[in-house]
Amino acid sequence: MPGILSLMTDFGTLDHYVGVMKSVMLTKDPLAQIIDITHDIEPQNIDQAKFLTRCSYEYFNENAIHIIIVDPGVGTDRRIVILQTPGGCFIGPDNGVLSEIIKKYSELGTDAQYGLINVPKSCKAFALDRKEFWMNPVSNTFHGRDIIAPIAVLLNQTLDPSVYGTEIKKLKYSPLPTPLIEEQSIIGSIVYCDRFGNLISNIHSGLINEDKITNIEVAKQKISKIASTFQNSNSNDPFTALIGSHGYLEISKYSVSAAKEIGIVVGDEIKVEYTKQG
Amino acid sequence: MPGILSLMTDFGTLDHYVGVMKSVMLTKDPLAQIIDITHDIEPQNIDQAKFLTRCSYEYFNENAIHIIIVDPGVGTDRRIVILQTPGGCFIGPDNGVLSEIIKKYSELGTDAQYGLINVPKSCKAFALDRKEFWMNPVSNTFHGRDIIAPIAVLLNQTLDPSVYGTEIKKLKYSPLPTPLIEEQSIIGSIVYCDRFGNLISNIHSGLINEDKITNIEVAKQKISKIASTFQNSNSNDPFTALIGSHGYLEISKYSVSAAKEIGIVVGDEIKVEYTKQG
Amino acid sequence: MPGILSLMTDFGTLDHYVGVMKSVMLTKDPLAQIIDITHDIEPQNIDQAKFLTRCSYEYFNENAIHIIIVDPGVGTDRRIVILQTPGGCFIGPDNGVLSEIIKKYSELGTDAQYGLINVPKSCKAFALDRKEFWMNPVSNTFHGRDIIAPIAVLLNQTLDPSVYGTEIKKLKYSPLPTPLIEEQSIIGSIVYCDRFGNLISNIHSGLINEDKITNIEVAKQKISKIASTFQNSNSNDPFTALIGSHGYLEISKYSVSAAKEIGIVVGDEIKVEYTKQG
Repeated sequence: MPGILSLMTDFGTLDHYVGVMKSVMLTKDPLAQIIDITHDIEPQNIDQAKFLTRCSYEYFNENAIHIIIVDPGVGTDRRIVILQTPGGCFIGPDNGVLSEIIKKYSELGTDAQYGLINVPKSCKAFALDRKEFWMNPVSNTFHGRDIIAPIAVLLNQTLDPSVYGTEIKKLKYSPLPTPLIEEQSIIGSIVYCDRFGNLISNIHSGLINEDKITNIEVAKQKISKIASTFQNSNSNDPFTALIGSHGYLEISKYSVSAAKEIGIVVGDEIKVEYTKQG
Repeated sequence: MPGILSLMTDFGTLDHYVGVMKSVMLTKDPLAQIIDITHDIEPQNIDQAKFLTRCSYEYFNENAIHIIIVDPGVGTDRRIVILQTPGGCFIGPDNGVLSEIIKKYSELGTDAQYGLINVPKSCKAFALDRKEFWMNPVSNTFHGRDIIAPIAVLLNQTLDPSVYGTEIKKLKYSPLPTPLIEEQSIIGSIVYCDRFGNLISNIHSGLINEDKITNIEVAKQKISKIASTFQNSNSNDPFTALIGSHGYLEISKYSVSAAKEIGIVVGDEIKVEYTKQG
Repeated sequence: MPGILSLMTDFGTLDHYVGVMKSVMLTKDPLAQIIDITHDIEPQNIDQAKFLTRCSYEYFNENAIHIIIVDPGVGTDRRIVILQTPGGCFIGPDNGVLSEIIKKYSELGTDAQYGLINVPKSCKAFALDRKEFWMNPVSNTFHGRDIIAPIAVLLNQTLDPSVYGTEIKKLKYSPLPTPLIEEQSIIGSIVYCDRFGNLISNIHSGLINEDKITNIEVAKQKISKIASTFQNSNSNDPFTALIGSHGYLEISKYSVSAAKEIGIVVGDEIKVEYTKQG
């Protein structure tokens, strides 16, 4: 049975762009299952797409095809690639938007440099260049409809990306920032703000020693501990720090937008401080 | 044949939350049919969800599974329940969000008190506590993904809620306000404002004696009669009063937002006045 | 195999309206495939729907059923019609919203007058009047749910519109403005602004002689040539003019909203000027 196609773009829902992509796919395969992750990525905001890809793909199985289109360079010589991983196939522009998936499988871990890096050994990558599978004609400004949609739906049936492109050995890599881990603290940053105004950091729960925390600080607000729920009713902290459903430390406030109340933005610092020993 | 799953949340469409819930469901049952009612309930606005549930569930058949998630208490000891009714199954937190469905089937009618009330005799309710059906691990902040999605899709196949939880006899009840019906008037309130700016009241057409109306008043605006369409071209009334597609008295204005023009909000009073007799 | 149903409305996604229409359709035919084009047409903005219909229907096959509901006159004596064309069936109010499809097939071309015109010879039109196929009762304000949804899903199975209505010979016609083509210039107008702030004109690429262009002017901004991509990196032009994915001349700006920067609105003039000869 073919897998599910997931769809994440910055196309918005005001226009016909997403509907037309789905039409191209379902006309070729009326039984294809398409799930919208979101189409409300801010225009050209590749970092948002990186974060949401990281949060969503693990809830699909390894047969899924993930279409990720935030593509300011559409129509230029940037490549469109299929990244085949043990956890599913990803299709998108080779502009760094797949970096969090590459990071997941890369042998280099956080040591990898920004720029072009080797495709991880457990993965394969292909640059789409078999024009016989594209729409004809191909526009310069809507490769989602003209190249990605028709190939994604075929890939979902064949699961063989080599049919649609030439294997490549390097991909553009620009992962989200990683936190600085020191003996007495972790210094991270806010990487995403969700619709509730929750401020999500890049500090994964696996990096945190909860018992040793003395202070969590963001925009001069001090929070004393990590709570377990949004209600956080036992605390005098001005905000709630908790481990979100994605596994990362996030700052929230019960029933209001923490982002609005704190007044900070993506990129700002968040610090976890530990007890001084000795 | 399994029924349709309907999905109503306050998750918005900016983030990955809805897509991930669908992925959990469709990965378990690739043939499941999921219909989005809306994901744009204002964050934590349980009353909006009550109203939209009341307006939508009757257009599904009795095999449908309705998922309703507006859940400020996620992760606390509030229960997640399945309410099995003659008109379909409803899954959501036991925080009052199912009250309009309970009201529909309750023997107590408008006499029921707020708080915990008995499950209506024609219904059954179950608190989800069979953790073997949950995701593992379960987050504290996204029970939609970790508990409700996997169980909803199984329930759609088995239609037996007793498999997933323990039967309970009481549910939290906080219905939308009911209008006050007097001999010379009906005093209701605005309970919902839609995207067109139509102001929808809690006064059902079945309560209104149209022939006797002398005046409809909302925010000091006087409307002389109930019109049949939005265009209302035969009237000098400043606004149009009509019976909306949900069966309730609503205030609208042709081609503009009545809500913006009147400047009132949900909760404000609306009054239907009748001819004085004698 | 039945075709795909496409759905375009001004219902928004805040309320239950779209979900309920889908429920009516999928309850009647659980295997129906429904694609949302958009529900974010501005309330009552028929022109937006005309433009998006023109941009989207060609990516469906000829078995598709296109539901288009922007219907300020709902409940009045305006008709609901099925327009059967060689490129698919269209259902919507007879208020001009189907004009761009009529124009595509009309023998009159740009000479057709606004008002009632003959149904094109390659098409047939039917006014829905067989109430046995409608919901019972029918509301005055939601014909999408009560008339169009149940008939669309049946039509998708039978492909015979004559079952649901009486054939009619004329339809209301109010196409988008057509550009004025002169020897030295083309004078068009902006007909649509998309979520990226791209300003899309009514000047189709087929009308433009690119080699002869000396100037493109919109709101006193001068652009020297038509670029091939949004990045337009070789130009000192303040904005980028290009042929969009829909085939029309559009004005954009890399990474920002051209609409906001120029400050113009739909309806404003755009002019393509050619070299003077001799």
